[in-house]
Amino acid sequence: MAEDGEIIEHHVSEEMEKKRHFARLPEAFLEREEHGSTQSSHRLLAYSDALISIIATVMILPVAHTKIQDNEELKESLQQHLTAKIAVYLMTFLIVTVAWAAHIRLFQVFERIDDCLALLNLACMMLITFLPYTFSLMAAFPDNILGILLFCSCVIVIGLIQAVIVLYGFGRPHLLNDQIQGSQNQGFYKRHILKVILRVPAFCFFAGIFSFVYPLLSYVLLAVVIFFPYISQSLRWCYSKAVGKDEGEISDPMLFYSYHPNEPLSKERVEAFSDGVYAIVATLLILDICEDNVPDPLEVQQRFNGSLVDALQEFGPEYLAYFGSFATVGLLWFVHHSLFLHVTKSTRLMGLLNTFSLAFVGGLPLAYQLTHEFPHNSHNELEAIQISCVIIFFAGLFQLAIWVAALFNQRETLHPFVHYNGQDHAFMLAKLAVYPCMALGTFFVTCVLSRFSAPVFHLAQIGVPFAFLLLRLLVRAALSVLRWLSRPSHPAAPFSDVLT
Amino acid sequence: MAEDGEIIEHHVSEEMEKKRHFARLPEAFLEREEHGSTQSSHRLLAYSDALISIIATVMILPVAHTKIQDNEELKESLQQHLTAKIAVYLMTFLIVTVAWAAHIRLFQVFERIDDCLALLNLACMMLITFLPYTFSLMAAFPDNILGILLFCSCVIVIGLIQAVIVLYGFGRPHLLNDQIQGSQNQGFYKRHILKVILRVPAFCFFAGIFSFVYPLLSYVLLAVVIFFPYISQSLRWCYSKAVGKDEGEISDPMLFYSYHPNEPLSKERVEAFSDGVYAIVATLLILDICEDNVPDPLEVQQRFNGSLVDALQEFGPEYLAYFGSFATVGLLWFVHHSLFLHVTKSTRLMGLLNTFSLAFVGGLPLAYQLTHEFPHNSHNELEAIQISCVIIFFAGLFQLAIWVAALFNQRETLHPFVHYNGQDHAFMLAKLAVYPCMALGTFFVTCVLSRFSAPVFHLAQIGVPFAFLLLRLLVRAALSVLRWLSRPSHPAAPFSDVLT
Repeated sequence: MAEDGEIIEHHVSEEMEKKRHFARLPEAFLEREEHGSTQSSHRLLAYSDALISIIATVMILPVAHTKIQDNEELKESLQQHLTAKIAVYLMTFLIVTVAWAAHIRLFQVFERIDDCLALLNLACMMLITFLPYTFSLMAAFPDNILGILLFCSCVIVIGLIQAVIVLYGFGRPHLLNDQIQGSQNQGFYKRHILKVILRVPAFCFFAGIFSFVYPLLSYVLLAVVIFFPYISQSLRWCYSKAVGKDEGEISDPMLFYSYHPNEPLSKERVEAFSDGVYAIVATLLILDICEDNVPDPLEVQQRFNGSLVDALQEFGPEYLAYFGSFATVGLLWFVHHSLFLHVTKSTRLMGLLNTFSLAFVGGLPLAYQLTHEFPHNSHNELEAIQISCVIIFFAGLFQLAIWVAALFNQRETLHPFVHYNGQDHAFMLAKLAVYPCMALGTFFVTCVLSRFSAPVFHLAQIGVPFAFLLLRLLVRAALSVLRWLSRPSHPAAPFSDVLT
Repeated sequence: MAEDGEIIEHHVSEEMEKKRHFARLPEAFLEREEHGSTQSSHRLLAYSDALISIIATVMILPVAHTKIQDNEELKESLQQHLTAKIAVYLMTFLIVTVAWAAHIRLFQVFERIDDCLALLNLACMMLITFLPYTFSLMAAFPDNILGILLFCSCVIVIGLIQAVIVLYGFGRPHLLNDQIQGSQNQGFYKRHILKVILRVPAFCFFAGIFSFVYPLLSYVLLAVVIFFPYISQSLRWCYSKAVGKDEGEISDPMLFYSYHPNEPLSKERVEAFSDGVYAIVATLLILDICEDNVPDPLEVQQRFNGSLVDALQEFGPEYLAYFGSFATVGLLWFVHHSLFLHVTKSTRLMGLLNTFSLAFVGGLPLAYQLTHEFPHNSHNELEAIQISCVIIFFAGLFQLAIWVAALFNQRETLHPFVHYNGQDHAFMLAKLAVYPCMALGTFFVTCVLSRFSAPVFHLAQIGVPFAFLLLRLLVRAALSVLRWLSRPSHPAAPFSDVLT
C-alpha cells in the first residue's frame, strides 16, 4: 500500500542484484577470461561528470576575485575589468558543456568498459580540464596566436583519443551497447561515428593553420565548428515545426549522433552534472570565507583590543551572503531535483536549456561577492543587488523553460501525473515559478525603494525557504479560490481534478 | 555469451524500470494523494555526498596557498607556518567525515523522502559546510572561546535538526525502510536512534558551558564525544578478536546505530563521496593555474619583448606539476574504482580506512604546490619531492588496507573471483601495490641520487600510467615465472589456477 505512491528512480535493491549475480556465477567463471574483465561504465561516467562540472564552474572564481576599486562606479568597473573575464567564464562553460555532450554521445555507444577504456577516458578528461587555461590565455592576449594554437592542439588530441576509444570499442564488440551489438551493420555505425568525431579535430587543424595568416578567421571557424550542428539542427527543427512535418524527421534510422533536439540524453548524466555544478557553487563562498575572513591575531590585538567578536562583526555581511547564497543554490537544486523526478526521458533540447540555467547558477558566487563588497546604501550596492536578482531570475526562468520544453512532448518525457491538468501539474509549476517571481519582485521593489534595497533582498532570501515549506498549502488555497471564482460560469474548472 | 563475463553494478536498464513503473500506475494514481509526493532518496544523498566531499577537501587550499619564504629551510617553515593549518585540514576532514558517517546512519533509516525532509536535509548541510570556518577560528585563536562556542552551537543545531528529521520520519512510517516499517517495535527503534543522535548535542552543550571555565577541558570533551563510539568499539573488537568470540557480538538485534566495525555501510555512498574527493583534488591545481599563471600583458611587453612563449616558459614546472597531479589522482581513482568493483558489501572499518586514504589524497595539492615552488636542485626541492612520495605512499597504503580488511571477511565483502587464490586476486593486488611501490622506490632513489630528485620523480610519474596499461601482461609474466620456479618442488603452485 505505502509503496505504491512513490516515484521510483531507476535502481533496484542491492540484494536482488546480488542474487542475480550469484545465479549466473558458474558461467561467469568459465567465460570471464575470454574478454579480460569488463565492467559497467556507471561510476566512470559519474566521475567524468563530476570533473567536467567542476571545471565548468570554477572559472567563475577569477571573475569573482577581481578587485573593484571603491572610487569607480560599479557600472564602469564592470565594463572595464569584468567583461573579458565574464566572457571567458561563459565561453568556458559553453565549450566544456559541448565537450560533455560529446562525451555523453561517445559513451552512449558503450554498454560496458574495461581498464584500457577507463585509462583512455582519464587521458581525455585531463585535456578537457586544461581547456579553461587556453581560454584564459586567449582572453588575456587576443592578438597572440599561442592561445588559439594551444586550444586547437588540445581539441585535436581529445578528438584523436576519442577516435581511438571508438576503434578500440568496435574491435571488442562485447563492450558495445546492445543495439549496435545486435545490428548487422556495425561497420556503418563505426564509419558514421568516426566521421562525426573526426570532423572537429580536422576543422581545428585548419583553424590552427589559418591563425598564422588571419587570426580572426580562425576564431570564426572555431565558433562555427563547435556550434554548427546545434545551429543547423535548431533551424531545421524550427522550420519543420513551422511547416508541420516534424514526425518524418524523427524516424531517422541513425539513433546516435543525430544532433536532433529530441535525441534522447541520459537523464542520469544530466542529473549528475547538475548536482556537481550546484554542489560546487554552494560551497565556493565558504572556501573564500575560510581563506580570507579569519582575522589576523595581531590585528585583533591592536585594532580591537583583543575582542574577537568586534573583529568578526566587520565580516557580518559576508556570513549573511554565505547563508543567502547557500540557501538560494540549495533551493534551486531542490527545484531541479523535483523537476527531474517527474521527467522520464530527457532530450537534447532540455539538456541545452539546463546548461543555460546552470551557467546562470554558476554566476551566483559573483553576484554574492558583489552584494557584500560595497558600503551600505551606495549606488553600487543597489546595482549589485539588482545584478543578483537578474542572475537568479534567469537561472529560474531556464528551469521553467525545461519544464515547458518537456510539456511540448509530455507523453514521452513526463510522468502522467504531472501532464497538463494532471494531479501535481499546478504544484510543480508553482515550485518552478517561486524563484523567477521572487527575483522579479525584488528587482522592482528595489527600483522603487532604492534606500531599502539590502533589507528587501535579505528579507526575500529568508522568506523563500518558508514559501517552499508552505507551497503545497498555498497552491491548494489558490486553486480553491480559482475554483470558487470559476464555478458560476464554468461548471468544470480547468484544475478541479487536482483537488481532493 | 558476451554478457556473462562482466562485473555488473546495481543498476537495471531504464527501459525495464519504466515498464515496471507504468505497470503499477493505476494504483499509484489512487493512492498517491494519501502521502503527498514521496520520492526515492537516491539523488538527495548523492548531492549531500558531493557537498560534504567538497567541504572536506577544499580546506587544503589555505594550506597550499601559504607563502613560504625562500630564505628559510622548508623544514623550519613547515613547522612554523604549516603545522596549524595542516592540523585544521586534518581535523576538518575527520570531523566532516564523522558528520558524513552520521548522515549515512540517519538516512539508512529512511527508504523514501518527501519535500519536507529534503528541505530539512539542506538546512543540515548548510550548517555542516559552515563547520570548517569555526575550525579556522579555533586554530587562529586557540585561547579565545568564540571558535569553540560557534562550533558547539552548529553541532547542537545540526543534532536538533536530525532529531526533527527522525521524529518527522517516524510520524510518517511509509517513509521508513522496510525493516523498521515491518517491525512491531518501532517505538524502540525511535527511542534508540534519538538517544544516539541527541547524545552529541547534549555533550556539546556541556562542552560549551565548560569552555567559559576551562577551555582545554572542553576541547578534550569534544574529542571524546566525537570519537568515543569508534574508540570503544575498536577496543571491544580488538579484544573480542584476541579472545576469539567475535561471532557472538555480531548477532546484535540492533542493526542500526550499532557502531560495530562490521556494520554495513552503503557502498554507493562511499563511492559517491570518494568520487567527489578525487574529482575536487584533480581539479584544484588547474584552478590555481588559471588564476595565477596567466602572465600580465604589460609585463610580457616589458620583460619579454612581447614574446608570450618566453613568458610562459617561466611557468613550465607548474604545467608539469598539473599533469603529474592529475595523472596521480586519476590513477588512484582508477585503483579505487577497480577495488570497489570487486566489493559486494562495504563495512564501517573499510569506510574508516577509505577516509584515511582520502585524507592523504586531499593532501596531494599541497605536495604538488611544494614540488614546483623551489629552485631546481635546492635542498627544499628534495624535501618537497620526498613529502610528495610519503603522501602518495600512505594514500596507496590505505587503499591496500581496505583490500586486506575486505579479505579478512571475504565471503561477505568480495566477489568470489577475487577471493584469495581466486582468478583476479593477484591482478588486483598488483594494481593496489603499484603506487606504494612507486612512492617507496622514488623516495629511496632520491635519498641516494639527491641531485637528480626532480627528474627521477617526473620519470616515475610518467612511467606509472604505462605500468597500469601493461599490468595484466606483467602480472601474467610474473606468475608464470613463479610457477616455473615452484614447479620442481611443489606440483601445485599457489597461483597456478590463475593462469589460463
